[in-house]
Amino acid sequence: MNMEVRWKQGMAFETITPSGHTVILDASEEVGGLDTGPRPTEMLLHATASCTGIDIVSILHKMRQPLDSFEMAIDGIRATEHPKRFTAVHILYRLKGDLSEERVRRAIELSVERYCSVSHSLNATLTYSYQLNDGEVIPFELKSEQDG
Amino acid sequence: MNMEVRWKQGMAFETITPSGHTVILDASEEVGGLDTGPRPTEMLLHATASCTGIDIVSILHKMRQPLDSFEMAIDGIRATEHPKRFTAVHILYRLKGDLSEERVRRAIELSVERYCSVSHSLNATLTYSYQLNDGEVIPFELKSEQDG
Repeated sequence: MNMEVRWKQGMAFETITPSGHTVILDASEEVGGLDTGPRPTEMLLHATASCTGIDIVSILHKMRQPLDSFEMAIDGIRATEHPKRFTAVHILYRLKGDLSEERVRRAIELSVERYCSVSHSLNATLTYSYQLNDGEVIPFELKSEQDG
Repeated sequence: MNMEVRWKQGMAFETITPSGHTVILDASEEVGGLDTGPRPTEMLLHATASCTGIDIVSILHKMRQPLDSFEMAIDGIRATEHPKRFTAVHILYRLKGDLSEERVRRAIELSVERYCSVSHSLNATLTYSYQLNDGEVIPFELKSEQDG
């Protein structure tokens, strides 16, 4: 995948993505940017959540599971020292609908273990939990951890 | 850093970032999305390029180096097998202006070795090159590779 990213002004960078969308990312005014777009670090988390989210919507659809609403809370922990990389990322999946918990767990498993390109591109410890219909928050154990 | 990411429709996911920007990411129509926003994988590359780009603009500004234009070509190579993660990312920095090559090299070095949060959050081999005023493309050797 190739992209051209062009400096626009201040600290703003624009691209037209291969799919044809124009996106500007920018720094905050505190560090000399003009805040004309979101931060790169914010987009890293959004990309991670949306990538696994797309998987799960797609898998539940194939399983004919009726999804009424679906939100994720994504929490990225960064190192305190430069380069302040993301060391840990947690995603809480909140799903509502007449859903089989077993199918939901299987959809999460397929995304986080097999399909999500973005999360597997990260050098961070990823952990997951889920909540069905406002029930309790249940940690999602990765198979690789269960086996290990 | 915390974010709430909400499923909107089809495979589109929306967030309001901590900096207050609303961003929708979506899948292509070929896989069942509605293409109402860019792909998560595209945003991973844009975030990577913009993060190091912001560093370099900032550092060259502090060095009082007059930057006339600045573009990056970012190329992400993905594995052929699921999860098709990014295994290698190359960034070509193209800078124009009355710039000292030594200062430009130092700015790149500071970003890629020390400051860029996003590139250091990736589980991929990152390589870099640069081009000054349409001159030849010069590979940028990482210190850690030179030492190793």
